[in-house]
Parts: sequence; structure tokens; C-alpha cells
Amino acid sequence: MNTLYHYPLSPYSRKVRLCLAEKKIEVGLVEERYWEQSPEFLRRNPAAKVPVLKMNGRIMSESTAICEYLEDVQPTPPLMPRDAEGRYEMRRLIGWFDDKFYHEVTSKLTGERVYRKVMGRGYPDSANVKAGARAIKFHLDYMAHLLENRRWLAGNDMTLADFAGAAHLSCLDYTSDVDWNRHEVVKDWYAKIKSRPAFRSLLADEVPGFQPAAHYADLDF
Amino acid sequence: MNTLYHYPLSPYSRKVRLCLAEKKIEVGLVEERYWEQSPEFLRRNPAAKVPVLKMNGRIMSESTAICEYLEDVQPTPPLMPRDAEGRYEMRRLIGWFDDKFYHEVTSKLTGERVYRKVMGRGYPDSANVKAGARAIKFHLDYMAHLLENRRWLAGNDMTLADFAGAAHLSCLDYTSDVDWNRHEVVKDWYAKIKSRPAFRSLLADEVPGFQPAAHYADLDF
Repeated sequence: MNTLYHYPLSPYSRKVRLCLAEKKIEVGLVEERYWEQSPEFLRRNPAAKVPVLKMNGRIMSESTAICEYLEDVQPTPPLMPRDAEGRYEMRRLIGWFDDKFYHEVTSKLTGERVYRKVMGRGYPDSANVKAGARAIKFHLDYMAHLLENRRWLAGNDMTLADFAGAAHLSCLDYTSDVDWNRHEVVKDWYAKIKSRPAFRSLLADEVPGFQPAAHYADLDF
Repeated sequence: MNTLYHYPLSPYSRKVRLCLAEKKIEVGLVEERYWEQSPEFLRRNPAAKVPVLKMNGRIMSESTAICEYLEDVQPTPPLMPRDAEGRYEMRRLIGWFDDKFYHEVTSKLTGERVYRKVMGRGYPDSANVKAGARAIKFHLDYMAHLLENRRWLAGNDMTLADFAGAAHLSCLDYTSDVDWNRHEVVKDWYAKIKSRPAFRSLLADEVPGFQPAAHYADLDF
């Protein structure tokens, strides 16, 4: 049996969960409070991050490396463009979300509102929350700019870049931090990806002490 | 003519410079003080990061996406393993260096000693410098652990993972922050990569106001 060590509101875990589900690779989910750095978990991943995938006896970390590996060993359905330019654009956007978007938005909103509390580090830093709330507007505008010319974020086919983006936005949506009325194209894109069977497990997540937004699991939000 | 907008002590720029040089793709280097966010630079890369590569009319950002693209369009010499397991390990290590190593070590040493001053943000934070100096020991130990079983970081062939690691370590070596006596295997690995023609341009870098360590450009260090 394959196992994914994850944390429900980890965007990196969610990206891998979406990838596994689209490729119909079954995994058991094990919630890992990775910041507690249990010796057993550190043995699996000295980087002390989630997700960690145990598959066919291999233990793998680094979410993007995992997704590219899954694409290599199970190419159906394809989640990457076939041409070099398309793959570049997909990888650029995964980098955009997992580095820039994470540091400017996810870490400042989900990080402050949820992680800080579950990690026992006190109350949200309001300056960070304000900075995150400001930054997400710029990012939603950028996504709209992309989606006005393409059906999906990296081109006309759904790719791992959409999973990276949706992974972050779904965490932010859990705490009502996404203004879906800002751009109809972004809302339409999220509605499309949210209605996929692969998304169901994410919509069922619950973090004790944090109720998801009323519309969080609603496909007609 | 191709152009790479870079900053000399940016490990991400250095990774791409090594990749371009190994593949013998000629580029003109333009130093970019990216933190000043000139409107012209932001137009090229809204993420406001270096490197940015202008090649055949395309403008590209995100260092790993660029390297993978170069591998796609110019596969000789190969800088990635052919098998899925090898590629996974290479990508895992690139993620390790560009995320974990960067945040724990490079940003705390090169970031505090050099960037803080050139960015006009005052004096190094000594707590950060101490934390970086502590963390690099763990990372050198981890690299030694890998290199005791392999010729190169990700396996028996040189790959982009070696460029990622050498890019960070060469920035740290500029300010004498690497204890090469800690592990002979790590020193041997660095000597091998440092003596490649592709490395020459990095060894010629100088940041005004910061003399490189005496041994920095010495192949017999």
C-alpha cells in the first residue's frame, strides 16, 4: 500500500494529492504534524517537510520532484504539455506559486491564521495578514491576465501548474481569504478544477478548531 | 544575441550560468540589481527575481524551469539522468538546495554579509549569521553522506543537482563561509566541479566592496 504523509492545509501536499488522484494511484493518507519533527518522520525526510510519499518501497520528498516522477512512471492521463515551451511555462508557474505566491500570500494568510495556532506559536501577526491580503489581489489579477488568453493556467490543457495554483487557493479558500468576485475568469477556472473527482478529498479536509468557510466544499460557490 | 540578467552572488543565476556554459550556449551577462525593481526589469519578470534569460526572442524566468527547458531544447551534453528514479533524485536535490539550503544557509550568510549591505539595509544580523554558520555544518554532513556512495550528488553522473549545490557553495565560498576541511569527499567534489571550464566565469565575479576569499578562484584550494 502506498502512503502519503501530509498535512491537510499544506499546499504542497495538496498538489501531490491532486496529481495522485488524477492518475488514479491509490494512497493511504497519514496526517503528519511535521513541525514537531518526530525522529521517525525525520528518518523518512531529513528536510522535515510534507508531503512524503512512500510508494513501491521508495520514500520520496519535494512535491514537484514527486509530481514529475509520477508523470514519468505513469504518463496517463498526461499532466504536462508535450512541447518544451509548454513544459517551461508549466514549470515557471509551479515555481511562481510554490515560491513567490507561497511567501507573499499563503504563508501570510493560512500561515498566520491556521499554522501559527496549531503549531502553538500564539496569535496571528496582523501586519503579515494585511500584507497577504494585499498581495493576493495582485496575484489574482495576474491569474486573470493568464486565463484571459488560455483555458488553463499554463496553456489550453490542464497541467500540474493548475494543481499548484488550486492547491494554494484551496487552502486560502478554507479561511475565506479569496475574493472570488474579483475576476470571473479565475472563479470559472477554480469551479472547473474544484468539480473534478480528484478534488473531493481536499474538500472533505477539516482542521480541528478551524471551521472551513461555508462555501468551501460547495461546487456552486 | 542571448542575454542573461543576473546578479553575481545569486545562486539561482549561477545555476543557470553553469548550465548555459556546459551546453555551450553563448549569452551576454547583464548585472541586474533586481531588488530595485526597475519598471523595465519588472516588465521582463513580474516575479522581480533573477535570473531572467532572453533567448531566441523568449523571456524566461524561474531558474529550474529555465534549466529543464535548456535540457529539453539542447540535450547535449546531458545534465539529467535518463531514468525516472535518477531524475527524481536530481529534482529532489535541486529542491533541497534551492529551498531548504537557501533559507537555512545562503540567505543567512551571503544574504546577511553581502545582500543586506548592497541593498542598503544596514548591518548583518548576527543571530542570522550564527544560525547559518551552524546550519551549514549539517548540510555539509548531508552532502558527505551522499557523496560517500556516489560520484556526484544525484548519482554517478554530473547533473543539474551538482550545479545547484555548487552554485550555493560558491557564493558562500566567496565570503569564506565553507569549511572545506570538514569532509574530504565534499572538497573533492567541489574541486572537480570548480575546475570545469563552465565554472570560470563564476570565479571571475567580483562584488564591489567585497573582496572574495583568497582561495576563492584557486583551483588548488
